[in-house]
Amino acid sequence: MLRLDISRVKKAVTEEELNSLIPDLRRAHETLINKEGPGSEYTGWLELPEKTDKDELSRLKAAADKIRRGSSVLVVIGIGGSYLGARAAIEFIKGGFYNSGATSPEIYFLGNGLSTDYYNEIIRIIGDRDFSVNVISKSGGTTEPAVAFRLFKSLIEEKYGKEDARTRIFATTDARRGALKTLADAEGYECFVIPDDIGGRYSVLTPVGLLPMLAAGIDADRVLGGARTMMTRLVCEKSLKSAAWRYAGIRNALYNTGKNIELLTYFEPRFRFAAEWWKQLFGESEGKENKGIFPASAEFTADLHSLGQYIQQGERTLFETIVNFRAEKEDVIIPHMRDDFDGLNYLSGKSISYINDKAYAGTALAHEDGGVPNLTIELSGANEECFGALVYFFEFSCALSGYMLGVNPFNQPGVEEYKRNMFALLDKPGFGELAGKLRERLDGNK
Amino acid sequence: MLRLDISRVKKAVTEEELNSLIPDLRRAHETLINKEGPGSEYTGWLELPEKTDKDELSRLKAAADKIRRGSSVLVVIGIGGSYLGARAAIEFIKGGFYNSGATSPEIYFLGNGLSTDYYNEIIRIIGDRDFSVNVISKSGGTTEPAVAFRLFKSLIEEKYGKEDARTRIFATTDARRGALKTLADAEGYECFVIPDDIGGRYSVLTPVGLLPMLAAGIDADRVLGGARTMMTRLVCEKSLKSAAWRYAGIRNALYNTGKNIELLTYFEPRFRFAAEWWKQLFGESEGKENKGIFPASAEFTADLHSLGQYIQQGERTLFETIVNFRAEKEDVIIPHMRDDFDGLNYLSGKSISYINDKAYAGTALAHEDGGVPNLTIELSGANEECFGALVYFFEFSCALSGYMLGVNPFNQPGVEEYKRNMFALLDKPGFGELAGKLRERLDGNK
Repeated sequence: MLRLDISRVKKAVTEEELNSLIPDLRRAHETLINKEGPGSEYTGWLELPEKTDKDELSRLKAAADKIRRGSSVLVVIGIGGSYLGARAAIEFIKGGFYNSGATSPEIYFLGNGLSTDYYNEIIRIIGDRDFSVNVISKSGGTTEPAVAFRLFKSLIEEKYGKEDARTRIFATTDARRGALKTLADAEGYECFVIPDDIGGRYSVLTPVGLLPMLAAGIDADRVLGGARTMMTRLVCEKSLKSAAWRYAGIRNALYNTGKNIELLTYFEPRFRFAAEWWKQLFGESEGKENKGIFPASAEFTADLHSLGQYIQQGERTLFETIVNFRAEKEDVIIPHMRDDFDGLNYLSGKSISYINDKAYAGTALAHEDGGVPNLTIELSGANEECFGALVYFFEFSCALSGYMLGVNPFNQPGVEEYKRNMFALLDKPGFGELAGKLRERLDGNK
Repeated sequence: MLRLDISRVKKAVTEEELNSLIPDLRRAHETLINKEGPGSEYTGWLELPEKTDKDELSRLKAAADKIRRGSSVLVVIGIGGSYLGARAAIEFIKGGFYNSGATSPEIYFLGNGLSTDYYNEIIRIIGDRDFSVNVISKSGGTTEPAVAFRLFKSLIEEKYGKEDARTRIFATTDARRGALKTLADAEGYECFVIPDDIGGRYSVLTPVGLLPMLAAGIDADRVLGGARTMMTRLVCEKSLKSAAWRYAGIRNALYNTGKNIELLTYFEPRFRFAAEWWKQLFGESEGKENKGIFPASAEFTADLHSLGQYIQQGERTLFETIVNFRAEKEDVIIPHMRDDFDGLNYLSGKSISYINDKAYAGTALAHEDGGVPNLTIELSGANEECFGALVYFFEFSCALSGYMLGVNPFNQPGVEEYKRNMFALLDKPGFGELAGKLRERLDGNK
């Protein structure tokens, strides 16, 4: 399902060095599973794959069925962890062209930004087709999704009337508190729970990710099954046999030698949003107290003709984690050409995935030679089990890695800064003093 | 059209420091425009906006008209500079949902990777609709586009017969030499020229980018006009009044103080591929000889809930260039709600672009406070002129910046490494010895 190949970091991190990290890894592991570290109140994701609420899962499936039967479009409203996980899952499993497929519903993500053009486009694309809304917010108070929901609540009530609109709105939110929960109860929306002990970026296997996945026709049981398999492997294995120990250990070892950028690369465009999800997971978990590896991503082979030059010969501050699919594919074969006009006849009869595989191997070796140590995460397929396994693997590794770095991998204090400034500049009550100061600075800058 | 605001880097780079770079900037500028530096044989883009071949431009427009009349889909085959520029232009000007619009033709980019799934998806999406192909390759020998063209040449000939297929294939390639030019002449494809003195990443305003743009209904004259305006400004202005001098100067000053990651951020999703194009331009131009700023990008406000934490409080190796559109928009207004369930009534009657503008200002100040110096490139709109101006601004700045760094900003020697390995592993004739060595290493890694 998931295999980690560390052979191409051995020159940069010797076996001895990796072994020397075992005590740190053990400490991080035990801190994590004994729930004794900073942020331990947000480690509910650890047991989640075997503790998924069966009744709620049934309700999620029923809601998804209802959406699939009655809507051509599902609008999913959420930001950060309430956005990237579901999108990552749908593109990973169903492909990046999911919305161009024949199956309903198309799924669009909204409330993850403030672009007017983007709003207008989504409204145009929905047109007069039937749609439902899944609004995802723990509190209901985050500006971007709240703005989107206020707009789409109006649109859906206008189209269907207040009564029918209620049956087309699904709220994924806190179990008891918050603006969204209060409204949902008053209006009678069907609700699903964001658990208190799971933060946004670790929430993809909760209803946050599961309802959009189910609406897209993804088998959630298989996703959870993949995660469960990985959980069983990783929680119990306290040694370098654990892929999470090796990944977390090597990341930290490389960071300590000055590799401060990790580039997550992949050869399948369907992985693009899984990489975006990964950037949030690691960037938000580790990027604090003026430390942390900067997470970046690149799509190959496209970006071998873009960032490739930098990777091969630029500043030597990079290491690379390559995601490679070992999948059986409905393959495309290179035809033979009598005139061999392009000199490609040496490839005729070969499949594109065969060439892709050689591109992968050639790239991995070239980057190693160029001074970019690289690991490979090999996945057996672009399916539900692999997605679930990959999610759990990254979450567990990230928590270990954060504890090794000495930070709280479950908070995100820095995210408030821009919000505070934005509230002040928007004249939100209570921010008057800050507003004055900021306006002075902005005026001074003109 | 384009304005550069450097007020929020003044703490990190004082006016004195910036002034001290004037001699370097002047030297770089003169080296560039006198065509005396390394790679000067690839500086044809400098005069391009006023030297565009009028006859060829007419032929391009006629070809685009033919495509628009006779095809529901245009497949654009190219990689690197033969891919990103056109995609950037179409999304920037026509929006990220261009292919979901009512207008023909849909445009898909192929030959920029080796994903079987991606091939199958494009073939499925075309279905039995009419299509044309624009194959873009200087030599015709680059593996990814060559593979794609071999396949689509077969498909299009199968569908339309060899005679009609010829009228649906447009080749953008060398004026005289190369496998693609030879084939195109033999088959009678209409050809457009990639000039010898313009490298891939500087080629977006040549037929490489212009034909796909025109096919998408973009006004190429306006794009070239925007570039021309910027050219007139930048070539003559040898002082810090030049936005290119300030941008190139500040980048280098920040790099010298240890800021080795530049994050290009934007608040409009339509900018995503312009950011990808920018990454190639700067990464490939500067990332060599073990130096260069690492180019990364983020989409706000989405990524303020992802990379935002890292930007605000992670390792202090970042600086940021924000692209902000000061555009008039068909705006979306926040409705008033009697119950104010979400506490957003303080925003009712305000527009989403008003909120976005405050999010931008709040973010810029928060990042400055967090130790991330940031510049803003202000664009007056998401239109043709601004795209042309932005392209020329970045190209000119990049060339200056590369010369200041002491590298050849017009070569990309490192891109060959993965190709050589790939050829060897694919048993391409002539790579036998390397193949043996690589296979040994791969076997040893198992």
